Amino acid sequence: MILLTRKAEFSSAHFYWNPDWSEEENVRVFGKCANRQGHGHNYTLEVTVAGEIEPVSGFVIDLKLLKEIMEREVVSVYDHRHLNFEVPEFAEMIPTTENIALAIWRRLVGKIENGRLHRVRVYEMPDLFVDFYGEGA
Amino acid sequence: MILLTRKAEFSSAHFYWNPDWSEEENVRVFGKCANRQGHGHNYTLEVTVAGEIEPVSGFVIDLKLLKEIMEREVVSVYDHRHLNFEVPEFAEMIPTTENIALAIWRRLVGKIENGRLHRVRVYEMPDLFVDFYGEGA
Amino acid sequence: MILLTRKAEFSSAHFYWNPDWSEEENVRVFGKCANRQGHGHNYTLEVTVAGEIEPVSGFVIDLKLLKEIMEREVVSVYDHRHLNFEVPEFAEMIPTTENIALAIWRRLVGKIENGRLHRVRVYEMPDLFVDFYGEGA
Amino acid sequence: MILLTRKAEFSSAHFYWNPDWSEEENVRVFGKCANRQGHGHNYTLEVTVAGEIEPVSGFVIDLKLLKEIMEREVVSVYDHRHLNFEVPEFAEMIPTTENIALAIWRRLVGKIENGRLHRVRVYEMPDLFVDFYGEGA
Amino acid sequence: MILLTRKAEFSSAHFYWNPDWSEEENVRVFGKCANRQGHGHNYTLEVTVAGEIEPVSGFVIDLKLLKEIMEREVVSVYDHRHLNFEVPEFAEMIPTTENIALAIWRRLVGKIENGRLHRVRVYEMPDLFVDFYGEGA
Amino acid sequence: MILLTRKAEFSSAHFYWNPDWSEEENVRVFGKCANRQGHGHNYTLEVTVAGEIEPVSGFVIDLKLLKEIMEREVVSVYDHRHLNFEVPEFAEMIPTTENIALAIWRRLVGKIENGRLHRVRVYEMPDLFVDFYGEGA
Repeated sequence: MILLTRKAEFSSAHFYWNPDWSEEENVRVFGKCANRQGHGHNYTLEVTVAGEIEPVSGFVIDLKLLKEIMEREVVSVYDHRHLNFEVPEFAEMIPTTENIALAIWRRLVGKIENGRLHRVRVYEMPDLFVDFYGEGA
Repeated sequence: MILLTRKAEFSSAHFYWNPDWSEEENVRVFGKCANRQGHGHNYTLEVTVAGEIEPVSGFVIDLKLLKEIMEREVVSVYDHRHLNFEVPEFAEMIPTTENIALAIWRRLVGKIENGRLHRVRVYEMPDLFVDFYGEGA
Repeated sequence: MILLTRKAEFSSAHFYWNPDWSEEENVRVFGKCANRQGHGHNYTLEVTVAGEIEPVSGFVIDLKLLKEIMEREVVSVYDHRHLNFEVPEFAEMIPTTENIALAIWRRLVGKIENGRLHRVRVYEMPDLFVDFYGEGA
Repeated sequence: MILLTRKAEFSSAHFYWNPDWSEEENVRVFGKCANRQGHGHNYTLEVTVAGEIEPVSGFVIDLKLLKEIMEREVVSVYDHRHLNFEVPEFAEMIPTTENIALAIWRRLVGKIENGRLHRVRVYEMPDLFVDFYGEGA
Repeated sequence: MILLTRKAEFSSAHFYWNPDWSEEENVRVFGKCANRQGHGHNYTLEVTVAGEIEPVSGFVIDLKLLKEIMEREVVSVYDHRHLNFEVPEFAEMIPTTENIALAIWRRLVGKIENGRLHRVRVYEMPDLFVDFYGEGA
Repeated sequence: MILLTRKAEFSSAHFYWNPDWSEEENVRVFGKCANRQGHGHNYTLEVTVAGEIEPVSGFVIDLKLLKEIMEREVVSVYDHRHLNFEVPEFAEMIPTTENIALAIWRRLVGKIENGRLHRVRVYEMPDLFVDFYGEGA
């Protein structure tokens, strides 16, 4: 078994807000991220696929195909979008890095045919990232 | 003469829109950036100061002071903000990387006492940046 | 279960020296690192916390809190310090990257309340790093 | 147990070609990589060794020794070489990133005395990498 | 005046060889780069355009247009190619980083309409790059 | 004319201290850097050489030669050393990034035969660097 990882990037706006809380409580928990005008990030996504090397091609999974799946299922939906207002899963779920990684896992897990989705990593900033391996997805 | 450069980061939302144009014209020129829900970036700012080395300290400019000026004049105003709606200069000026570099120059130019502001560089993404040296500011 | 990782940096001096060995033996094993005037590095620390996403906040752990713990327990003690002379655990233990990772684990393990400490990674240079998961700590 | 990782780089030419397939089939599967004039990359290799910290040195493995092993067994053989024509294992095996990681594992696995080879990671580009842990090597 | 820089990447094979010299002389001057099987690199290209900010768009040059010009004039010709055998200018000129920067300048200089080509930077490796400003092109 | 830049790294200890000042004054100006136990950094040095491309080689300067000069004149003297105590120029001059860049210029300026020394850049940290072009050296 071998693991292949491919990166992609998307640039999105977001903010953190729990509608069940007062403004004071939102600011206390979320700080500057509670500003409902929104702010944004260059997110980096790493998708890792596990599988066997196919001897005739030397591939676990065709890289062009993996890039297309990532583009179609995630990047085209998230990039240059406001996550809170334009991406359906974040109508109900605060778009923290943790929830973004979970949401991307759910978007990708049934779509990869050769190989098995192993890990989704999302960087919000170079010094902050989340890894999700599908437990409890 | 010697040049000292310090980096800082801010995460902001923005979009591109010229109110004198139709929606079609805005989309034709600005593409995905014309989405008025906004998207965002992790911007990297580099500020370069030119001056002589002061022999008693070995400094062109005190680094803690330079960091404070950058924080007070730029980062505290731009970070975790929507540039179009919350930063005054972008009420009138589209927040492209070019205009952000120009606006940061104007914010900093009178504030640096030891040394002379030499260059402002702004990265919108790792593969796109703008340099401004103050000509025509 | 999901993993969240945050980075921090500290700049420290150190050298490698086993007082039970002769100078020749120290130089043979440690090479340039045996110079007792010391040299130094920009260390990068990555702390990974494992846990469940709390639905009301979307967080595994409050990032500001994690940053404060890392600052208080590690960065404020190690940064701009000579590890051999100023950090107590290295009076007895050579400050190799392996031992620094182990020492940071011990400093952090009881301090994280939401979530469980999963991994400590320490980079001494961009091309050299150590991972510790707590086995035998 | 602790994990130590060291990086190295090599610059090589390669192309992808299955001699049992027609030119059309090779181009369909491998795209631009099927160009038999070859193209090339700056590969980054990460070698991870697992072991216990030796108390007298503070090391899992002597870093100078690990660097020498990586240089002798891999870098001196792959660097500034055309992988398809000059590296024996790729006479029979297409030099995809997956197969390069597998080949490097086989080159290193018997050579590391202190510590146990834990992982080989190979980056072909900054946005594409493969991890191999030795399963089925 | 303001400067805008955009990056692109291409992966190519090359070697250094002066046909007027003996094999010994080529190896003496070019070392491992004289291996005529070729080796390769991930090159990074930075193209800098100088101009005035157009007030209606906030742009020096339309970024999508600049990306298309770089793709059409350089990347589509150099990427996944053997520079010595497949790119016409290197039939006569050794594909050193210096000559690649010069050749890219000549390919781009007449093609940029808004703004003026200011600088071409080419990285062969992260630790080696060349800047060309058009003097004597 | 074309510019070629090569990077190198060195890891050193230092502190900032003006012996004409009281301890209080040193701490007021230099903050944590005034700790005379020392701390340290991974410095990155970029050396830029300007010249004409020599047609027979395609080189401005032989890269192996440039690497040897940088190694001999700077890296072998500064790396794994305490700058204040072991590098002669810092007996009289505080080893700030500004003074390190100046000192490296003086070490290199007479030693480069093909091409002319154009710029020395020194990074103390990824977010702090100094450029020196030789004015007033």
